[in-house]
Amino acid sequence: MTDTKDQSKAQKKAEKQTKQAKQTTVPVVGGKKTDDIIGITVKKSENFSQWYQEVVLKAELIEYYTEISGFFIMRPATMYIWNTIRKWFQERIEAMGVEETSFPMFLSQKSLEKEKAHVEGFAPELAWVTKAGEKDLDVPVAVRPTSEAVMYPYYAKWIRSHRDLPFRLNQWNSVVRWEAKQTTPFLRAREFLWQEGHTAHLTEEQAAKEVLEILELYAGIYEQLLAVPVVRGRKTEAEKFAGGYYTTTVEGYIPSNGRGIQGATSHCLGQNFSKMFDITVEDPNEKGKHLYVWQNSWGLSTRVIGVMVMIHGDDKGLVLPPRIAKIQSILIPVGLTAKMTAEEKEAHLKKLDEILDILKKAGVRAESDLRDGYTPAWKFNDWELKGVPLRIEFGPKDAAKDVVSYARRDTGEKGTIPIAELTTKVPEMLETIQQDMYNRAEKAFREHRLQITNWDEVVPALDAKNLVIIPHCLVPECEEQIKEMTKGRSDESPDTPEGQKAPSMGMKSLCIPFEQPEGIVKGETKCLNPQCSRFAEAWCMFGRSY
Amino acid sequence: MTDTKDQSKAQKKAEKQTKQAKQTTVPVVGGKKTDDIIGITVKKSENFSQWYQEVVLKAELIEYYTEISGFFIMRPATMYIWNTIRKWFQERIEAMGVEETSFPMFLSQKSLEKEKAHVEGFAPELAWVTKAGEKDLDVPVAVRPTSEAVMYPYYAKWIRSHRDLPFRLNQWNSVVRWEAKQTTPFLRAREFLWQEGHTAHLTEEQAAKEVLEILELYAGIYEQLLAVPVVRGRKTEAEKFAGGYYTTTVEGYIPSNGRGIQGATSHCLGQNFSKMFDITVEDPNEKGKHLYVWQNSWGLSTRVIGVMVMIHGDDKGLVLPPRIAKIQSILIPVGLTAKMTAEEKEAHLKKLDEILDILKKAGVRAESDLRDGYTPAWKFNDWELKGVPLRIEFGPKDAAKDVVSYARRDTGEKGTIPIAELTTKVPEMLETIQQDMYNRAEKAFREHRLQITNWDEVVPALDAKNLVIIPHCLVPECEEQIKEMTKGRSDESPDTPEGQKAPSMGMKSLCIPFEQPEGIVKGETKCLNPQCSRFAEAWCMFGRSY
Repeated sequence: MTDTKDQSKAQKKAEKQTKQAKQTTVPVVGGKKTDDIIGITVKKSENFSQWYQEVVLKAELIEYYTEISGFFIMRPATMYIWNTIRKWFQERIEAMGVEETSFPMFLSQKSLEKEKAHVEGFAPELAWVTKAGEKDLDVPVAVRPTSEAVMYPYYAKWIRSHRDLPFRLNQWNSVVRWEAKQTTPFLRAREFLWQEGHTAHLTEEQAAKEVLEILELYAGIYEQLLAVPVVRGRKTEAEKFAGGYYTTTVEGYIPSNGRGIQGATSHCLGQNFSKMFDITVEDPNEKGKHLYVWQNSWGLSTRVIGVMVMIHGDDKGLVLPPRIAKIQSILIPVGLTAKMTAEEKEAHLKKLDEILDILKKAGVRAESDLRDGYTPAWKFNDWELKGVPLRIEFGPKDAAKDVVSYARRDTGEKGTIPIAELTTKVPEMLETIQQDMYNRAEKAFREHRLQITNWDEVVPALDAKNLVIIPHCLVPECEEQIKEMTKGRSDESPDTPEGQKAPSMGMKSLCIPFEQPEGIVKGETKCLNPQCSRFAEAWCMFGRSY
Repeated sequence: MTDTKDQSKAQKKAEKQTKQAKQTTVPVVGGKKTDDIIGITVKKSENFSQWYQEVVLKAELIEYYTEISGFFIMRPATMYIWNTIRKWFQERIEAMGVEETSFPMFLSQKSLEKEKAHVEGFAPELAWVTKAGEKDLDVPVAVRPTSEAVMYPYYAKWIRSHRDLPFRLNQWNSVVRWEAKQTTPFLRAREFLWQEGHTAHLTEEQAAKEVLEILELYAGIYEQLLAVPVVRGRKTEAEKFAGGYYTTTVEGYIPSNGRGIQGATSHCLGQNFSKMFDITVEDPNEKGKHLYVWQNSWGLSTRVIGVMVMIHGDDKGLVLPPRIAKIQSILIPVGLTAKMTAEEKEAHLKKLDEILDILKKAGVRAESDLRDGYTPAWKFNDWELKGVPLRIEFGPKDAAKDVVSYARRDTGEKGTIPIAELTTKVPEMLETIQQDMYNRAEKAFREHRLQITNWDEVVPALDAKNLVIIPHCLVPECEEQIKEMTKGRSDESPDTPEGQKAPSMGMKSLCIPFEQPEGIVKGETKCLNPQCSRFAEAWCMFGRSY
């Protein structure tokens, strides 16, 4: 059924549990009251990876594609979030002058091989089409893992003059990287949705400016839409994009296991690809002289959604920031007892409908849950599981006082709002929820980025779920050594997918933060690695990571 | 370089010509005046297929993907049109309750084989991934040619109760069908962009209603956005979707060669797939009884853009209907002579900028072309080639009279508009252009759909670039016979891709139009095929076709 044997037991177990859960969460057909929703069965703090798998499945963000391992189905709840991000980003890059394109999904070996480091970086994960119908292809083609080698032969054709620069294209598609590693919904999948921008510039300065503009948009998606704080920085040589010049990145942090996670990357490719693909223009300042263009590429994937889930979710399930929630507020009728007459019930539901209308007119993405055969408590659980930011309850007692009752998903805080104030209070509260979610996550990240100048403190800091910022020489061999030196067994080590304690992974460099602390004196401050004799070049953020 | 050997000489020739054309259309760098634009080198009426290939290339809609034959690059001009269609359609299906999803691009052999007719229909065109990195896959996977077999195993899981119905998902993606036939940009490609909707219903009636609602949206895309008339109808058994119950279609017509072209199809799958994939719900009217759901699938692809190009384009290039034109009106300064002072020129361009502003504020997608080093005549040609619906010229003489001069792309009509009336006249004129384009195409289609009751008139009608509507028995064998009987050499036969006269193709059934003429008496009127002894069931539209 699957092509590799690394589909973990945990994944299979989660699938089985989900199937069981599915069967029990569906109430008896025919209108019988039931409260038997099966929510998340493990605590986030106790078994983080199983918790995560249950949340993304039960909140109906994804479904495992059991036909082929390592693939996931993006369900409507995911697509809503992705489309919100897409629209936000698309508007902004359009304003910058980036145009949309769509290149084929297949790549020839010949194009791929033009940039040596690039092909070496991606070759192990390429999916090869070797047959069409019953017929073997004369030359196999690979599914794109990224499109530099697909697109740049045409950049050579289309860019004819410096007046064509900057030349900027973006495409929204999916790419395939046949990972041998354990896959995880959103974070590491063999196919994922993303956007990939590919641009060409006359000068390094112009390219560099765009690299940072795009990085700032990526940071905006995390911070402004997903309420997720990130650290902006530059990747070390060891971690940069295969074939690129330098890579900038936004790096996130998962408090539950103390791991860092790469958020999105904006690369300056320099002239490496333009030299290989012969993308030149005539120097505007010197007739007859040809210049290789400066290129960038930048991508952001559905991974962002996984990071958001990991940071904000809790033991009841998903917690969505209001700005990306399809349903921001769910309106649930309560207290409709058997004693009430049909007319009384009808009048109450009519009032509830008016409230829904008020909320919608105030620009709130509100829905009401009038499903028969479910108790209010069941509905509460169901919408909590799905992460709706604000629950509004409306019962006869509320009606008598011209108020609604509310419960915030993020804090559980409850209270009432006068109906007359809904138009202002609900949008305000949604904005407060958004800000509070960001602030909590930002505090957690800030408190777990430790600036360390004593090597002996590094592993204990990692075990206490921190990232560390250390003076470092930025040399790849030293990073490799540090990774080995920080491996080891520890009681505090992060959970493995099986939920067992296992040897903790070594730390790797996440980025050289743009915001550099004081304290490094060039040619004087030592690299923190005690086995390294080089001087430190910068403060570098290291951590265990995804 | 390519995997098959059917890349035609014509295609290679067109590529070569395009490369040459590219080199000559780029004016000399350094600001020298030049008029040497190379437009379309053949007349639409003389060599239609070469004309088409030149238009889509030179108007920068597509680029041939020379790395792998049968694939095309969609350039920004195409993506603007596709995104306009996408937005229009997405809004309407969202209002119907269709949600967005994204399934993996790969398919297991096992799923595919569940529906026999379906797998037989698609197997010859499947692209098989057999290798990942250096490693052979244990079980090869195919790239989706369509997603019924990808999605329906999950429909069986997700649809648990009749209360989950209607269940409706849509996805925007690309699919791969490794065509052995000659490929043509937009019309037949080995990978194409589309949307595919997949829905499930409790009853046949509910499914049938949706089939037609979607078909009407497809007709709307052609008629309202692309100014392309279509005939709505049902496919015969011989031409329906592999594995489906029945297929409805919108059919278009290409006046230049008299061919029909399938526009988009909306299928009722009946219960064929639900039986194979075991998608059932409990009968709401009878406890314990299980019903197989009724399913639909429906898709519209980038083919629509090719149809639009073929119908509206002319010897100068592309002609875009205003509603899907990224630039609806291009504003070009004229009459700036060497005698004018720098101040005079500056004042004139300032005025031109004000006009641009007026147009934009009136909701017109307007741009100005202030490029140095190009004559107005060169610019006129360039924007005509690219199909911009309305050109506005502004020179000192216009300024003196407080008017602008205009030229309609569709008719070449010229005139002036007082600046004071731009706000109303330009939007009106764009709307007129849209309507006129539709009306002309509608007239051409109407006049070339001949209702015929004499077999001997059929082939001459086809040779005179008509489609025919004939009484037909609707039996597949009879259709096959008709196809053979109508093959033959003719001076009037459509051009082949090589631009040579060749044996004309036989006609096939396009659809059974919903609007049926009078005249068929059941059990009395004979099928028009003289070799067929059956009675006619309906008027059926036949034609040579894409």
